[in-house]
Amino acid sequence: MGPMTLPPGFRFHPTDEELVAYYLDRKINGGIIELEVIPEVDLYKCEPWDLPDKSFLPSKDMEWYFYSPRDRKYPNGSRTNRATRSGYWKATGKDRAVHSQKRAVGMKKTLVYYRGRAPHGIRTDWVMHEYRLIESASPTCTSTAGSTLKDSYALCRVFKKNIVIPKTSRQQSVGATVDQSCGMTTSVSHRRHPETSERMSTMKTS
Amino acid sequence: MGPMTLPPGFRFHPTDEELVAYYLDRKINGGIIELEVIPEVDLYKCEPWDLPDKSFLPSKDMEWYFYSPRDRKYPNGSRTNRATRSGYWKATGKDRAVHSQKRAVGMKKTLVYYRGRAPHGIRTDWVMHEYRLIESASPTCTSTAGSTLKDSYALCRVFKKNIVIPKTSRQQSVGATVDQSCGMTTSVSHRRHPETSERMSTMKTS
Repeated sequence: MGPMTLPPGFRFHPTDEELVAYYLDRKINGGIIELEVIPEVDLYKCEPWDLPDKSFLPSKDMEWYFYSPRDRKYPNGSRTNRATRSGYWKATGKDRAVHSQKRAVGMKKTLVYYRGRAPHGIRTDWVMHEYRLIESASPTCTSTAGSTLKDSYALCRVFKKNIVIPKTSRQQSVGATVDQSCGMTTSVSHRRHPETSERMSTMKTS
Repeated sequence: MGPMTLPPGFRFHPTDEELVAYYLDRKINGGIIELEVIPEVDLYKCEPWDLPDKSFLPSKDMEWYFYSPRDRKYPNGSRTNRATRSGYWKATGKDRAVHSQKRAVGMKKTLVYYRGRAPHGIRTDWVMHEYRLIESASPTCTSTAGSTLKDSYALCRVFKKNIVIPKTSRQQSVGATVDQSCGMTTSVSHRRHPETSERMSTMKTS
């Protein structure tokens, strides 16, 4: 599956809430996702520099999104195996809650990739934001089954720090000369549901 | 013409280059614009707070884009009339060049809206970025006609400072708790060219 293009100026710039409450929730609970832009990739079977090619969004933004199955280090344990062939991902900072409509719906963890083996790995500029769904207060969801299900996938954003990203205009500091030679087309993935193009072509008269 | 919606996470976040070298250049030179997201509005016939309703992009991002005909203060002069009924727009800072493929293609001016009449107006939080096309080095364009044509429209982004915008995730500071109650759907305008939805529905196999 390869990338496709969006009209100039349009980008996949999701909020944390959209990532958790829409993309991850629907992936895990089998909801319809309007535009399938996030592929399923086992992130711990890949090195970070191999990931951009697997993205449906080979965007100029230099960030890539994946659903990753949550692989356990020990069959019944809760620790996730974060080693790859050439290194490992190590958590940094505190996990943060992601809220939707005033309710905590997920957690966001930041990880950094180290080459080599712990504790002697060498820190790199590769960063991951890992989002996971948390137990909902929904009474329809039994505790054990719900917990297992909600842990089946994480949604991850991978990016490389210190890469010069063509900034969108509001982010630019006042007074700076703008010199960007980015292309005029943004790329995103294929889509699955026909409503999208219909929505994009519907002209509502107000 | 009313707004339409985009899949969650997708936004109109154009770079300066895209605004000038694609949207403004094609508007002025009659090129095809794939998705007509920017309406034509005489900005000096409106107060800033009336503008959001005229946008095809009533987005949660709280910024609005318009093509504005460049109205002269004096028929043969070069000064633009920036007064509205209730106030006026006043330039601030230096104009900055916008580049595309290492070439300056436009200028970007920042203006602030003042209520009342100069020099006694009261500064507000309404800000405008005004983009104009500059003379191209193209030999096909004669100096006088080209200059008039290129001055026919400006492309303007209007926004209100100090509004809390639901940040996209990369912009969020590490360590902060994310608490957003933004909706799950971004809105954009109608589209004119059928290629867009085809492009969005095309699945290229790589």
